[in-house]
Amino acid sequence: MAGPLTYRDAGVDVEGKARLLETLGAAITQTYGPDVSPWGGFAGILRLPAGTSQIAITIDGVGTKTVLARRLGQDRAIGSDIVAHCANDLVAAGVRPLCFADCVTMGRLDELLLTTLIEGMSEACARLGIPLIGGETAEMPGVYHEEAYDVVGAMVGSVIAYLGPAHVCAGDQIIGLASTGLHTNGYSLARRLVENLDLSQYEESLGAPIGAALLAPHPCYAPAVLSLLDAMPVHAAAHITGGGLPGNIVRILPPGLRARLEPSWPVPPVFPFLQQLGALDHAEMRRTFNLGVGMVLVVSLSDAARALEILRGAGETARVIGGVVPGNRDVVFT
Amino acid sequence: MAGPLTYRDAGVDVEGKARLLETLGAAITQTYGPDVSPWGGFAGILRLPAGTSQIAITIDGVGTKTVLARRLGQDRAIGSDIVAHCANDLVAAGVRPLCFADCVTMGRLDELLLTTLIEGMSEACARLGIPLIGGETAEMPGVYHEEAYDVVGAMVGSVIAYLGPAHVCAGDQIIGLASTGLHTNGYSLARRLVENLDLSQYEESLGAPIGAALLAPHPCYAPAVLSLLDAMPVHAAAHITGGGLPGNIVRILPPGLRARLEPSWPVPPVFPFLQQLGALDHAEMRRTFNLGVGMVLVVSLSDAARALEILRGAGETARVIGGVVPGNRDVVFT
Repeated sequence: MAGPLTYRDAGVDVEGKARLLETLGAAITQTYGPDVSPWGGFAGILRLPAGTSQIAITIDGVGTKTVLARRLGQDRAIGSDIVAHCANDLVAAGVRPLCFADCVTMGRLDELLLTTLIEGMSEACARLGIPLIGGETAEMPGVYHEEAYDVVGAMVGSVIAYLGPAHVCAGDQIIGLASTGLHTNGYSLARRLVENLDLSQYEESLGAPIGAALLAPHPCYAPAVLSLLDAMPVHAAAHITGGGLPGNIVRILPPGLRARLEPSWPVPPVFPFLQQLGALDHAEMRRTFNLGVGMVLVVSLSDAARALEILRGAGETARVIGGVVPGNRDVVFT
Repeated sequence: MAGPLTYRDAGVDVEGKARLLETLGAAITQTYGPDVSPWGGFAGILRLPAGTSQIAITIDGVGTKTVLARRLGQDRAIGSDIVAHCANDLVAAGVRPLCFADCVTMGRLDELLLTTLIEGMSEACARLGIPLIGGETAEMPGVYHEEAYDVVGAMVGSVIAYLGPAHVCAGDQIIGLASTGLHTNGYSLARRLVENLDLSQYEESLGAPIGAALLAPHPCYAPAVLSLLDAMPVHAAAHITGGGLPGNIVRILPPGLRARLEPSWPVPPVFPFLQQLGALDHAEMRRTFNLGVGMVLVVSLSDAARALEILRGAGETARVIGGVVPGNRDVVFT
């Protein structure tokens, strides 16, 4: 070995990282209200809203969407994707988001990429009205491929409603909120399907550049769902992620009840495009992709019309996509 | 392409994952007390202790310690490492841990490895008396090297004391808690130093098998620090991670005060071993490794003797390692 080795030689640049984090402080602190402790402590501290008696936490990643984002130079949206993903998980549990923390890991620190990601997360947190109060940036040479990165987010909130299987009854209506595309699921399969294609030739059939179609941002349904939770008893909600509609709706069904879906909603063109490329069967499509429905809400029949009105008023495309009927605890498509 | 492609062909096995998560439920739910919602919802829910008005969150990973753990077949400890790391970050901010959530990502799902990791995390959470209430398992082919994995943890707690630079005064004593080895920092460098060695021949000089020395578990200082926080005003605390003693102690100093350390504490033999292998200079060693001190606590001179007694009573090896003096905001070694 020629001369002494340093941590930097081994692929980790501690000083560069410290310098960079300083410059990111501005983006992050813009999300802070008066209830947040100064940036830079060993843990981010938040004053709870008065009356908070129960909190919830969710943690998730954006999966291999990062690979495609990198290939197409569209990493900024990944930052808002992870915030939306976490917020959607929380509101599906009847929880109002309070704060967010991120962990970005790369094979080798790319300052521009990290800045882009943190700015994206900060903007999404600011839109949601919550602070980004914790974060970690790690370089992991030898674990990640050189150009690869991963983004994990954790979000904490206060419980404002009790949702779940215990509240779901026969006759309930199932409302779906329109998805924009893959959100953050199914990318390992999608990437494999498109990896050897000249993507530019598919723009016409998709009605959009393929990059925009494949990387469409994960929508944040939190404002709309929170409006609904404020207005009426919601029986259950499901964020449609890995496992698709069947895999996620079954989680909110009690024994003896079945979800019967009537697939008449519009399916974003990216899904038939991928199905055709891979000759994928319907069952595989349904358990891998959201197929046009990103969030499901279960309400009583008498509340359904008002629920649609509230959700549409909050800017979502909402429709009744099925109902709850007696049967095995499963999800059927009519 | 021969026949239809499935998500499984693309490297993601949704059904295997669902089956496995079922079997992990037992390990996870053993950490649950009466204040936790049932496992399997979209977010883990926890009832807060009465009087909680501020919470804190920390998020972190174990870094490339996973690579060495895999090579040496000692992955179980990684689960408790991440819990200890997060708990130490919280208590350093004056925060009592309340709940933990994990995100395990692998190039390809290895069920045995995942079970080992979740069991390790569950055991560590149970020892700490907190529930593991959230988790995500992701397969990311194309991002991670095939055999590689990453473990990220997020921990939430309630603020029980206000620590930090504002409370640190000239004359304060700096107490160090002994470390066991690298904890979860400096592994990219350590790995590079040992990658071409026959590790078995170094056992004698280290007084332990090299695997045990390199992978020594990250101790959880939380019980000892919480005892101290209950007993006296602690001015500040620093968890010694990336950046070493200088990089972390400087974070708890106000302008105009210097930390003067007197390095007389025992240094675990793994550090001189690595220093020699890489011909590393002292400054590099100090900003990369903890060099024998895993947690630092700052208390007033009049409280120092009692603090040592309490920390030792809680099972830690504690000693005064220096003091706070007027000077530039920096850390000097005498």
